[in-house]
Amino acid sequence: MKGKFIVFEGIDGSGKTTQLNLLADDLRSRGFAVLNTREPGGTRVGELIREILLDPAYGELVPRAEALLYAAARAQHVAQVILPALREGRIVLCDRFLDSSLAYQGFGRGIEVGLLERINEPATDGLAPDLTIILDSGIEDGMDRISLSGRDADRIEREARAFHRKVRSGYLELAARDPSRYSVVNANRPVGQVYADVLRAVEEILNASPEKGSGT
Amino acid sequence: MKGKFIVFEGIDGSGKTTQLNLLADDLRSRGFAVLNTREPGGTRVGELIREILLDPAYGELVPRAEALLYAAARAQHVAQVILPALREGRIVLCDRFLDSSLAYQGFGRGIEVGLLERINEPATDGLAPDLTIILDSGIEDGMDRISLSGRDADRIEREARAFHRKVRSGYLELAARDPSRYSVVNANRPVGQVYADVLRAVEEILNASPEKGSGT
Repeated sequence: MKGKFIVFEGIDGSGKTTQLNLLADDLRSRGFAVLNTREPGGTRVGELIREILLDPAYGELVPRAEALLYAAARAQHVAQVILPALREGRIVLCDRFLDSSLAYQGFGRGIEVGLLERINEPATDGLAPDLTIILDSGIEDGMDRISLSGRDADRIEREARAFHRKVRSGYLELAARDPSRYSVVNANRPVGQVYADVLRAVEEILNASPEKGSGT
Repeated sequence: MKGKFIVFEGIDGSGKTTQLNLLADDLRSRGFAVLNTREPGGTRVGELIREILLDPAYGELVPRAEALLYAAARAQHVAQVILPALREGRIVLCDRFLDSSLAYQGFGRGIEVGLLERINEPATDGLAPDLTIILDSGIEDGMDRISLSGRDADRIEREARAFHRKVRSGYLELAARDPSRYSVVNANRPVGQVYADVLRAVEEILNASPEKGSGT
């Protein structure tokens, strides 16, 4: 695989989208071919699944069905979007991936992590990120950022703070298991300071193989 | 579990819906509490998933995403509809269940059957049918029945005949593995003759535990 697969993780409101967009613009200006994508979603089928997952109207969705829906969207995303871009040598920046399932459904809702890994085995098809950046934010800061944005909270964002606290510590536990593949960045700082740390982590893996993509 | 779980399986056009409705009316008239349901679907979330699965517009859907979507719909169906009805002592008649995934995605599309069983482990939550009736129909007869019905074929029905042939032999292989839980009925006969065989198989499992449900 010629490209690099970089994933942004963190609780809702931790600033993933902002940091991902800053990084995409920065890398493009340096001549890298960048693909900017997200989960759940990233494909036509995935965006339909995303609507079911995030719509507060589907409160009856059971945790196992939820986990399988995320995995279904991921299977389509990996096969149709991520793997082809990596084969072309692009840098793929993805807003959430497998660790979101482990942190939210596993640590957050209490589904056995091993079960989630088995469900996701056909979804990731063996693909793992080259680098996962966890934007670590206090629960209150994340929630405040969603309120300030003025939009309505989605089905997941409406969960209690205790749920988001479990998700946050789940992320930190995942990072602790395999520190070489994670970079935990303190997100409770001004955007530019956070970005400096993000960029440092990304440069490390790009310098390990400095080959640039060809084109946009 | 006080109720009975009876599943109808078979290729498209084998007459599952007709036989299931005949059986439901018959059992209700004898005072049994019957729930008539189907997969994919059977719940609000499941019917949305069904739309994605059967819409010919989503030709890009990859086999693994397809298999995970069926499992997601099944997880919701089992938790929200089938298990509660069985606990109430009802006879649940279901148009397609796990064996459809094994026959279509496994034998039909070539996904490893063990992988499908692992994906479906959280979906079925340990539930297995008391009886599975396979309506065995020749491919040509099934296809003719769909053409004669005057409706448009869905995404699965549009697959080549070779695909449906593999699905049919997959069903027969599943039945051969565990004959005590299956009844294979020749569906290339007049509706009433087929129904007589269906009823005989159902009466066998009902007589094994003749307790009737209470109510509708």
